[in-house]
Amino acid sequence: MQTALDCLPCLLRQALFAGRTAGADKAVLRVIVQEAAALLAKADLSLSPPENAAPLYRLIAQRTGASDPFARLKRESNEQAAAMTRNIRQWLMQEDAPLRTALILTIAGNVMDYGSPHGLDPADFLARCRQTPLALDHTNALLADLAAARSVLVLADNCGEILFDALLLELLADKRLWLAVKSRPVINDATKDDALALGLDRLAEVIANGTDIPGTALHRCSPAFAEVFRQADVVISKGQGNFETLCDTERQVYFLFTVKCAVVAGHLAERTGKRFATGDMILARNNWPRQRLPRG
Amino acid sequence: MQTALDCLPCLLRQALFAGRTAGADKAVLRVIVQEAAALLAKADLSLSPPENAAPLYRLIAQRTGASDPFARLKRESNEQAAAMTRNIRQWLMQEDAPLRTALILTIAGNVMDYGSPHGLDPADFLARCRQTPLALDHTNALLADLAAARSVLVLADNCGEILFDALLLELLADKRLWLAVKSRPVINDATKDDALALGLDRLAEVIANGTDIPGTALHRCSPAFAEVFRQADVVISKGQGNFETLCDTERQVYFLFTVKCAVVAGHLAERTGKRFATGDMILARNNWPRQRLPRG
Repeated sequence: MQTALDCLPCLLRQALFAGRTAGADKAVLRVIVQEAAALLAKADLSLSPPENAAPLYRLIAQRTGASDPFARLKRESNEQAAAMTRNIRQWLMQEDAPLRTALILTIAGNVMDYGSPHGLDPADFLARCRQTPLALDHTNALLADLAAARSVLVLADNCGEILFDALLLELLADKRLWLAVKSRPVINDATKDDALALGLDRLAEVIANGTDIPGTALHRCSPAFAEVFRQADVVISKGQGNFETLCDTERQVYFLFTVKCAVVAGHLAERTGKRFATGDMILARNNWPRQRLPRG
Repeated sequence: MQTALDCLPCLLRQALFAGRTAGADKAVLRVIVQEAAALLAKADLSLSPPENAAPLYRLIAQRTGASDPFARLKRESNEQAAAMTRNIRQWLMQEDAPLRTALILTIAGNVMDYGSPHGLDPADFLARCRQTPLALDHTNALLADLAAARSVLVLADNCGEILFDALLLELLADKRLWLAVKSRPVINDATKDDALALGLDRLAEVIANGTDIPGTALHRCSPAFAEVFRQADVVISKGQGNFETLCDTERQVYFLFTVKCAVVAGHLAERTGKRFATGDMILARNNWPRQRLPRG
């Protein structure tokens, strides 16, 4: 999808928020925000929002002098998610349909972001996930495709969340698995270093996509990544940034994410004829042009 | 007060909203938003937010080709306010303390903005105004100063709202009265044409302040306005834009407005040691450096 006009004020707000999170002092923040405004003044709005976000995060790294300004935040969310998933894993494996539940959990992992509580009771957490129906629900189609698949590519999104994706990978251990991450730090997105530090290479082949864009902009990705993207039997895409960059791609992709803004809600509505709101949980494949999604 | 970093994304959002309200099509809107971003990239943040907003509104007027892009909106809010105040006036004049009530009404006029309902029952409306306590309340000081004053300057804010200010002017008919408006259209702020069309020159001497800044930036105002500002016994300033530009001025000013953003809430909190939220109604004089405002 293209960058909407409403994305520009939001991207400027994000740059300020990210600069603060990265620990920039007021003088540096001022430079960041005004240089971000200058970048947005010349942004190519035919590109996706994550492609226009990437230069802003490069600017923050440059102006704060930190190669990974969000390192601490990433570490904290990994620790938080690790504490949660330790309990949830055991509970999950006793479920009647663990794979279906694991899919919902990975979407919930995208909901939680930074604000998730420590020491959550896993049964409570799962019950809450189940009580919230998916606003678009192609779970049955994904489960059927997974049953027939020999290989699966999971496009990771954030640190923290990636440990919920790991629960899913554990349940797909009979297949060839790839876990795609970013080549260089951007916001709290997982990189290869992050994935290896969490031992995720024991569950899947961890591949970097060749970019520092907070999404998967295919035309900017490495040939090696593009080849895996082409040949995997099933592609599971996590998070809104991956949706924004891939929703109009040719190949079938399953998008698992939480709607985080009105622009994406509107984009989904255009494709499906259904209304969406911020916070809606989505599990949907992208064959909208060929087949109208159900309204239900 | 100076422009905060958080003002920049907000000003960009306002430019987009204002461009849409002014009826710009998507191509023009795109130019407006990206040119607004370029202006913000070079904005002088030592100036007040309204001073940095003014060039954005000039841009909207220029790009939409309309000398007053908000003319229709201004007309509608005048009609709406006129319908309300017709009923309220009669009710107000039977009050025990009509002047005190009229002051609250003018603050409520600043709350209402565009979304106020037609045909509101005046008793209901006044009851609701009274039920909401002022978050800063120097009404007694203002009433005492008004009792002793021979001349009063009211700095007007928006169309619509200005008809509530007129109720106040009617109750001050024994004094020399000035009503200050903008010299050229900016957003929905009242101009001399607007004030004359509403017959407000029968209640006060209508003077333009010499600018198209949505506030009162004294160093940019005309000498004639500055002289009135200096010599008036009491100055009543309506709306947040006038507060943002005048809160640090030397002379005593009474600010009547509704808090519309976290930046202004924070600025008030710094001055008073009290917490404020968006939507809070304020009637306060600006002698914060000399005298701490009460916490109550």
